[in-house]
Amino acid sequence: MGRPSTGRERLLDAACQLMRTRSYSTVGVAEICATADVRKGSFYHFFPSKQELTLAAVDAHWTEQRAAWAATLSAPRPALDRLRQLLIDTAATYRQARDRSGTLHGCVLANLALELSADDTLVRARLQEIFADQVALIGATLADAAAEDTIAPAIANPVTARAIVAQLEGMVMFAKIDNDPAPLDDLWAHTRLLLGLRPVLT
Amino acid sequence: MGRPSTGRERLLDAACQLMRTRSYSTVGVAEICATADVRKGSFYHFFPSKQELTLAAVDAHWTEQRAAWAATLSAPRPALDRLRQLLIDTAATYRQARDRSGTLHGCVLANLALELSADDTLVRARLQEIFADQVALIGATLADAAAEDTIAPAIANPVTARAIVAQLEGMVMFAKIDNDPAPLDDLWAHTRLLLGLRPVLT
Repeated sequence: MGRPSTGRERLLDAACQLMRTRSYSTVGVAEICATADVRKGSFYHFFPSKQELTLAAVDAHWTEQRAAWAATLSAPRPALDRLRQLLIDTAATYRQARDRSGTLHGCVLANLALELSADDTLVRARLQEIFADQVALIGATLADAAAEDTIAPAIANPVTARAIVAQLEGMVMFAKIDNDPAPLDDLWAHTRLLLGLRPVLT
Repeated sequence: MGRPSTGRERLLDAACQLMRTRSYSTVGVAEICATADVRKGSFYHFFPSKQELTLAAVDAHWTEQRAAWAATLSAPRPALDRLRQLLIDTAATYRQARDRSGTLHGCVLANLALELSADDTLVRARLQEIFADQVALIGATLADAAAEDTIAPAIANPVTARAIVAQLEGMVMFAKIDNDPAPLDDLWAHTRLLLGLRPVLT
């Protein structure tokens, strides 16, 4: 984030923390301020509205997650190994968080996407951009795999990349409902199938 | 539902209607009563709490949806045709709802699953049962397909069935974010791949 104000950063951190564990609608400005140890008057100095804070929190979350995705997906390894590593890392992240707190809270971005009314066009538009970015990152890796001749060129397209992200988010939903990261261990096997590769024991 | 009291039914209908279009947390008992034209005192006669109403609303929703799933998946047709029809019907249902209201609200069950805190164990347990039921219905169809020799017996298992439901819910998330049912038109192509079948133009 790199902004000079620690008040703004504390508000963002508090919002991220509260939104991770609870329904977004039940998290109020007063509670965010109390958690961040920031006076309510200062809140509106940093953010004109809760929606503005939400957009900033969503951006901060994706900026951090995107850096991890980009590092994994640009490693000097075959493209399919990079993609497999991303899915292994994802399962490990959820497993660690569950082991730490006892609860698997799911993906903040998907939680918001499904909770918020479709009429909240501003946040929805931001989530749309972020998920398009995820699809583009996966899609670029699929293009690399096609260039390496490890998947068919015809399947290295945005529709397949979206199916991989959809599979990921759907499995995170199962993991959250079960409070168990085990479904995420299947991601690579299913992704291989979505890529038209034969089933393997992984 | 089939209960004699129309007050209870109106409360359930109102809750389903409000929960479909809005964050669950923002829907209060007073608003549900107003929408249902039921006095607040009567609410607590029918439901001891909002949580009890939520459980009943979730059950009513799945009872109706399950009947449609079961009808499609037990039709006298080859198993893969039945599965394909289920996915076509799902896309058509979301398309019709979007065309009617202008907004694609997503799957009530998945919306609740991702919005509710993982600590809401009662509703989470019910959602877990319902999604397990979905996986079982798909799994039975996969077993039929294996018996018909149209998919490999090794892939006709609950893990594959869960991947199909995960793909479905993930694509509903994209459809909701985009307010466009188009991603749901890819479900059959991706499901074929998850079943280890070759890509086809559908």
